[in-house]
Amino acid sequence: MIKVEHIGIAVKNINNSNELFTKLFNQQPYKLESVESEKVSTSFFQMGETKIELLEATDPDSPIAKFIEKRGEGIHHIAYEVENIEAEMKRLKNEGFTLLNETPKKGADNKLVCFLHPKSTNGVLIELCQEITSS
Amino acid sequence: MIKVEHIGIAVKNINNSNELFTKLFNQQPYKLESVESEKVSTSFFQMGETKIELLEATDPDSPIAKFIEKRGEGIHHIAYEVENIEAEMKRLKNEGFTLLNETPKKGADNKLVCFLHPKSTNGVLIELCQEITSS
Repeated sequence: MIKVEHIGIAVKNINNSNELFTKLFNQQPYKLESVESEKVSTSFFQMGETKIELLEATDPDSPIAKFIEKRGEGIHHIAYEVENIEAEMKRLKNEGFTLLNETPKKGADNKLVCFLHPKSTNGVLIELCQEITSS
Repeated sequence: MIKVEHIGIAVKNINNSNELFTKLFNQQPYKLESVESEKVSTSFFQMGETKIELLEATDPDSPIAKFIEKRGEGIHHIAYEVENIEAEMKRLKNEGFTLLNETPKKGADNKLVCFLHPKSTNGVLIELCQEITSS
């Protein structure tokens, strides 16, 4: 793992939260993006080498809607950038971690991603991500 | 704010979690530290420019013990490095955020710190921190 690529924060209303985090960070979000497959609207703030990603559910079936229903707004996941997501998935599976998807899937922000089950990681939902490069 | 200085994760047993996170990150913690004032044992892993701080309560009155009792193990706070903690505290107070301490206090890892109440920040406990420099 190379760095904390982003921290995902579940929010009820992304417009209100964009305003709040703009005040908090003293900067605007640099990007807004909807991810159909995850049923979320997202916004991104840059903080050093890490992004802060706000996530609002666009559907009651979205994992974000379920998270907020259960735990309220707050930190949803930490994403670590990896060089080779398939190798890292294999390594972590061998170490006993539970992968939520067996093959990398397309996430926000032009990334291949894989989630680890929080039950195997002290309650922390962890995302591995690797930039998709055109080759 | 300059960067995500560290992410604090509340754990029940820091020895078990050090083992778990050593497997996860494929590296050992580079430092173990007890913080008497916060009643916690901590360990630190480096991940790019950000540290991952594991926190175990050393007393049932510790904020970490209360957090785990209420929410279980998981991400406890995000700490942002600032250049001038007093100026940043003043700015955020003026923006309507609730500070949990009115003057900076001494935290782990040789830092002056201030926490913002999660009710004013979408459920995210935020720490501001500034390195203590000898002058």
